[in-house]
Amino acid sequence: MEKKDLLYEGKAKILYLTEDPNLLVQVFKDDLSAFNGTKRGKFDGKGEVCNAIATYMFEYLENYHVPTHFVKKVSESEMVVKRLEMIPIEVVVRNVATATLAKTYNLEEGKVLKYPIVEYFLKDDRLGDPMINEHHAFAMGYATPEEMKMIGRIASKVNAIFKSFFDRRGLVLVDFKLEFGKHDKSLLIGDEISPDTCRIWDKKTNKKMDKDRFRYDMGGVDKVYRELYDRIVSAA
Amino acid sequence: MEKKDLLYEGKAKILYLTEDPNLLVQVFKDDLSAFNGTKRGKFDGKGEVCNAIATYMFEYLENYHVPTHFVKKVSESEMVVKRLEMIPIEVVVRNVATATLAKTYNLEEGKVLKYPIVEYFLKDDRLGDPMINEHHAFAMGYATPEEMKMIGRIASKVNAIFKSFFDRRGLVLVDFKLEFGKHDKSLLIGDEISPDTCRIWDKKTNKKMDKDRFRYDMGGVDKVYRELYDRIVSAA
Repeated sequence: MEKKDLLYEGKAKILYLTEDPNLLVQVFKDDLSAFNGTKRGKFDGKGEVCNAIATYMFEYLENYHVPTHFVKKVSESEMVVKRLEMIPIEVVVRNVATATLAKTYNLEEGKVLKYPIVEYFLKDDRLGDPMINEHHAFAMGYATPEEMKMIGRIASKVNAIFKSFFDRRGLVLVDFKLEFGKHDKSLLIGDEISPDTCRIWDKKTNKKMDKDRFRYDMGGVDKVYRELYDRIVSAA
Repeated sequence: MEKKDLLYEGKAKILYLTEDPNLLVQVFKDDLSAFNGTKRGKFDGKGEVCNAIATYMFEYLENYHVPTHFVKKVSESEMVVKRLEMIPIEVVVRNVATATLAKTYNLEEGKVLKYPIVEYFLKDDRLGDPMINEHHAFAMGYATPEEMKMIGRIASKVNAIFKSFFDRRGLVLVDFKLEFGKHDKSLLIGDEISPDTCRIWDKKTNKKMDKDRFRYDMGGVDKVYRELYDRIVSAA
């Protein structure tokens, strides 16, 4: 599928129009960014490994009838996706207390939560991505109550699916972020699912297998992204 | 009803045990506090006017079958209330964008919201009362999903009741805070409903008739509290 005009360039991905108004090409860049874009980095092959992981994750969700924008992988660092009208809300699901959650509520770092927590944040770098709930989303015109309920349900289902998915691979799904959009009135998961958007720890050693290695200068970010890919596909 | 041992002293109220283990005496102090207790003040008769307003508001809610801890007013600054096991969550309902809401989400100051927003905050001064949602409340053990749903419903109902209550008195209910507790497995509104816990503006002039006059050193806090009481009872 041929790429036409650039539609949107983000920190780690680019979206291009295609000849089909319903479809886009999503290109995974080699760039890494953190803390609302204030920290930047990159490594060779990052786009390829994230595209491969996201493809695997989206295809896996398809088997469970979870609606996503994914259509097909078309090259090492590119996938075709359905064009979405994005809802500017970051949906975060957490199974383990760490990072902002642990700090904000004074929870013990690394403690497994009794029940998963679904959080919503307004995607707005200038405002610092403040937390919202379904009432804010509705009053500010970002989503209807029905859409927020559906988003919450899909996020919880994805968590259930991927928790056991990673567990079978000796990994803990600590938390992850989803973004949603609308296509032809359907609510679909957009963006990507990759170590850029998930926190994943080794079950035995607690080794971080995700972007926290870049955020906190722990080193070996390229190695763990590739190791994560190998472990994901190993149990296929 | 005779006061026994002091059970709890807060910034603006004191709770005393009584000979009945199910009942407490709630004493309204003349003290004012703001910004998590970092700003303090007082005025003579403040306890009496807040007790009178809270009594009126609780009795008004009773007519609408909204469950509260209020039993009866027993002196100028004291009411008898049911003893509650408090849920440490502040429930805020907002009809107009102002203060933290306007700042956090970059909303136009004073703009009427399309739909009311219900917000939940963990009542913890040391943590700065961070925002939570029903998932946090459940995962941290503060309330069940059913309790959170009921709290949300009661808060919305109270908003509907008081919005028209204040409107009929030429006043705008901008926002208010509720606290809930359990008594004999029932969920009841506790604490108080007063200009300490509500934002109320004059409909024509936008004059602030609440604790913001103290928070932002606007003066005349004692006068507006008394004027508010007069306007509340005037339409009785």
